Amino acid sequence: MPTNSPVIVDLKFIPEEVEAALQGAFPGREVINLADSARQGRDLSGIDYAVVWKSAPDLFSRAPDLKVVFSGGAGVDHVLTLPGLPDVPLVRFVDRTLTARMSEWVVMQCLLHLRQHRAYEALAKKREWRDLIQPEAADVTVGIMGMGVLGQDSARKLAIMGFKVIGWSRSKRAVEGMDTHGAAEIDSFLARTDFLVGLLPLTPETTGIFNSTLFAKLSRKGPFGAPVFINAGRGGSQVEADILECLDSGVLAGASLDVFEREPLSPESRFWDMPNVFVTPHVAASSDVKALFAHVEQQIARFESGLPLEHVVDKLAGY
Amino acid sequence: MPTNSPVIVDLKFIPEEVEAALQGAFPGREVINLADSARQGRDLSGIDYAVVWKSAPDLFSRAPDLKVVFSGGAGVDHVLTLPGLPDVPLVRFVDRTLTARMSEWVVMQCLLHLRQHRAYEALAKKREWRDLIQPEAADVTVGIMGMGVLGQDSARKLAIMGFKVIGWSRSKRAVEGMDTHGAAEIDSFLARTDFLVGLLPLTPETTGIFNSTLFAKLSRKGPFGAPVFINAGRGGSQVEADILECLDSGVLAGASLDVFEREPLSPESRFWDMPNVFVTPHVAASSDVKALFAHVEQQIARFESGLPLEHVVDKLAGY
Repeated sequence: MPTNSPVIVDLKFIPEEVEAALQGAFPGREVINLADSARQGRDLSGIDYAVVWKSAPDLFSRAPDLKVVFSGGAGVDHVLTLPGLPDVPLVRFVDRTLTARMSEWVVMQCLLHLRQHRAYEALAKKREWRDLIQPEAADVTVGIMGMGVLGQDSARKLAIMGFKVIGWSRSKRAVEGMDTHGAAEIDSFLARTDFLVGLLPLTPETTGIFNSTLFAKLSRKGPFGAPVFINAGRGGSQVEADILECLDSGVLAGASLDVFEREPLSPESRFWDMPNVFVTPHVAASSDVKALFAHVEQQIARFESGLPLEHVVDKLAGY
Repeated sequence: MPTNSPVIVDLKFIPEEVEAALQGAFPGREVINLADSARQGRDLSGIDYAVVWKSAPDLFSRAPDLKVVFSGGAGVDHVLTLPGLPDVPLVRFVDRTLTARMSEWVVMQCLLHLRQHRAYEALAKKREWRDLIQPEAADVTVGIMGMGVLGQDSARKLAIMGFKVIGWSRSKRAVEGMDTHGAAEIDSFLARTDFLVGLLPLTPETTGIFNSTLFAKLSRKGPFGAPVFINAGRGGSQVEADILECLDSGVLAGASLDVFEREPLSPESRFWDMPNVFVTPHVAASSDVKALFAHVEQQIARFESGLPLEHVVDKLAGY
């Protein structure tokens, strides 16, 4: 019986979570966790598999024999932009828990804006008991850009919470019970959207797509008179100078941002304490590390028994 | 054709919202809005209907001939405690929008605690980019006390968001796909509950039910090590001195309170700015006033054509 190939693990996650999840993971295989200083100098040649998230840029030169690369998250731009990406399958992480977590974040952000959370917090700070005129979810249309696994799950849950939901994706997708738009229909999609949710992958086409020109096309007929921008896709899709300008001028009524052009977000950024902006540090859908390793184990088992890998990325499309 | 009886409207809501909703309401009938100073002295004898929310205590002595009393909200304790309540049907407000709004609030509060919103806000205040170990909804059991229309809708939506949900009500109700408990099973219900949601009517049995003894029986096995208390039922069901003590001692990890023993909440209350407490001014499910009047019109039409009224309150049970 041939020796099982080791697995390289290079995940910029919370180190203790990775350590804990590795207990019992990959039975019968050596695990080379590059976060472990004792392993950092190890020879990586002849190794078949790597699980990576924001890997060191020399990974592919040090590990020239990889047969499959696994992304530690749903997004893969962090891998596609690494130097020396080998011409082997790149597998994204698709998982029930990752999807559920993203929808938790998206639904919570939509509810925070709908229910005027910051306005009520400001009243509480003044110890003032006063009710505000309160629209209900059915008065708000949420438009989701990016209707993959994550977008569809968020859409379904927002609809159950009572929001009107519409979707947009480059290649128009039919989703049962939902009004979806394709690339050419972006203007009519935006004109109907009160809360815009970004769940797009980062590709040359989506880089900088969330800019002043796009924000100016959003609906101003919603109950709050101006639209809200919510992004949990990729920071590279947004032009932050434009978001700031639109928040200042009232083109946008508020924002929720989990991703940024440069991460970590600079301590100098104005986003940290703007009145109707919610900032989270790229945690909307943190991968459950145990579930990630279970998924990688399962795909390796398929690969080694000759079955096709699942969730393989189209590198040309970029997602 | 006999003259249609006028309708008395005595709603302590936002006056402009009531005024706006009255435009076109109750066609063919005089509307006596007691918020209108010109109407306050009017003779109310011989009038059949009143729509009330926190009415003036002399209403029933001034209007001795009422045939039906309509509550402006789902709760009716504010009517049952008014002096001189006549022995006529009391109809609660049940409405899609009221139910949807309550579930918006309940789901948002559960997500705020799950997603460690206050901890992330504290980090943002320090402009610190750091992720926290994040349980998912499936790791948390939400226990709902009060499984009427509102409790069942919240339960369904929380389950769709991924939470484990269990229910308790005095007279145990079977709800499809959900583990429900009756009066005698309260201890086993509490032992399983990480987030406790109160949606109980205020009755002699529920007065002061949310106290230290009850909180001490809640689960401490959840991902946050201590339970969270969320109340959108009635303030009279909670003992606020006990909530404060349990928050201070760590018996409770957090709370979300929309209702209070005395409303408005005193500016001196400690609840306004406690670290993991969310306060809203009894707005979780503000009645949509237009929908309320449509519901009252519909019930009056039934009543006058000899059909039975719907949503009639059991005054003995108190809900």
